[in-house]
Amino acid sequence: MKVLKIDDLKKLHQKKYRQEFGCFLAEGEHLVQELQNAAADNPALMDSILYVTEKYQDWPAELATVPVSDRVMAQLSDTPSPQGILACVPIDALQNKPFAADKAERAIYLHEIQDPGNLGTILRTLAWFGGFRCMLSQGSVDPFNSKVVRSSMGAIFHVPLELDVPVEVLTSRYADIACLDMNGGSIKSAAFHHAACLAFGNEARGLPEQIKARDNALIFSIPGAGKIESLNLATTVNLCVYELCR
Amino acid sequence: MKVLKIDDLKKLHQKKYRQEFGCFLAEGEHLVQELQNAAADNPALMDSILYVTEKYQDWPAELATVPVSDRVMAQLSDTPSPQGILACVPIDALQNKPFAADKAERAIYLHEIQDPGNLGTILRTLAWFGGFRCMLSQGSVDPFNSKVVRSSMGAIFHVPLELDVPVEVLTSRYADIACLDMNGGSIKSAAFHHAACLAFGNEARGLPEQIKARDNALIFSIPGAGKIESLNLATTVNLCVYELCR
Repeated sequence: MKVLKIDDLKKLHQKKYRQEFGCFLAEGEHLVQELQNAAADNPALMDSILYVTEKYQDWPAELATVPVSDRVMAQLSDTPSPQGILACVPIDALQNKPFAADKAERAIYLHEIQDPGNLGTILRTLAWFGGFRCMLSQGSVDPFNSKVVRSSMGAIFHVPLELDVPVEVLTSRYADIACLDMNGGSIKSAAFHHAACLAFGNEARGLPEQIKARDNALIFSIPGAGKIESLNLATTVNLCVYELCR
Repeated sequence: MKVLKIDDLKKLHQKKYRQEFGCFLAEGEHLVQELQNAAADNPALMDSILYVTEKYQDWPAELATVPVSDRVMAQLSDTPSPQGILACVPIDALQNKPFAADKAERAIYLHEIQDPGNLGTILRTLAWFGGFRCMLSQGSVDPFNSKVVRSSMGAIFHVPLELDVPVEVLTSRYADIACLDMNGGSIKSAAFHHAACLAFGNEARGLPEQIKARDNALIFSIPGAGKIESLNLATTVNLCVYELCR
């Protein structure tokens, strides 16, 4: 990966520059450690470039490392007190894992998810259980924004991602799509366990009709006591993932 | 409940005044609706007082209602564009439900939980499934702060709460305490399903030894693929609750 100028690195806090340069920032000791752990399984992550202040000059990394001053680190960081270590990570390393129909892998499709904390928490759960890819529709929060990266606690390096996925890709790729919605069958049912793709709607609006009305769409719900209207979106995804892995 | 002066209502954004006056604010149409729904099962909530701008003057409520100007509402609200409806809710209505050993109720004990969004999400899950009380240790985030109330989406009105619970109360009240930690037994085990109390530690530090080392403490974990270190705290609680209700 090309080493960016400091002025360009600063721009990576904005989505359009992440797209232009094809990389994003991951800040702090924990995220960099998780990046290095993930690189063992995914060599494309070895193209990441590390930026360290004097405090981290002896950090054990096989990644290309660029020393920077505290002043420069403060400019690159989006926290008031930067730790002094930050990686620039190639987006392609995470999002171009090809789909293979014969693989024992399941897909989580999120339609217009908005909350960065929700997406980060979901990625953390997908990495915890393993064997999932995460597909995002157009209009979803950018998974490479710093709030998602941070709340994923590094899980973003472990989960194959697909961005801007059209509904047609879903419906042509998967024979059955389990749609999470109101008044559906129980997620404990065999039909739910057979679905290779699980689809979840936006925090406020749920799933659009164009997905729920497809021939290969089946509706499921998480049975509750009926006191309140809904579960948090990340909770719904996490419980479904747990049910499948149980 | 005594009607507070507007100047005192404003102070309810601070914890010490919520404790002094014994009430908290819940803002917006959805929260007020959930409050009224919950009052059907919990008549003490009928002591809540509603503050409405002209826009909401015809809101159907059996609660005492005080009309206020848009200017006053803007002062009471903690959002930049207030909806125009807000309730002042007595804390005692939510936290003094007595514990009864013979009841088919389970307890979730959270030790020094810090993140308001985590607590709100957990309350939402407890209300969704029903049959749980939520116990908080000293040093936990205040459940009546506006971020918790908002992210609970009104679930806070449905879950019995106990605050500042000493460890001794836990260990004397419950014969078995299921402690969620690393390297424990699976939550699918019968022993986990028998525990009437589940204990969870702080986001960063986990559970303290003084709880895990008790004679009636049993350690459990959520089995994962081993790629990352931990799940989000709210996710851990939510999956355990789901496992028990499954």
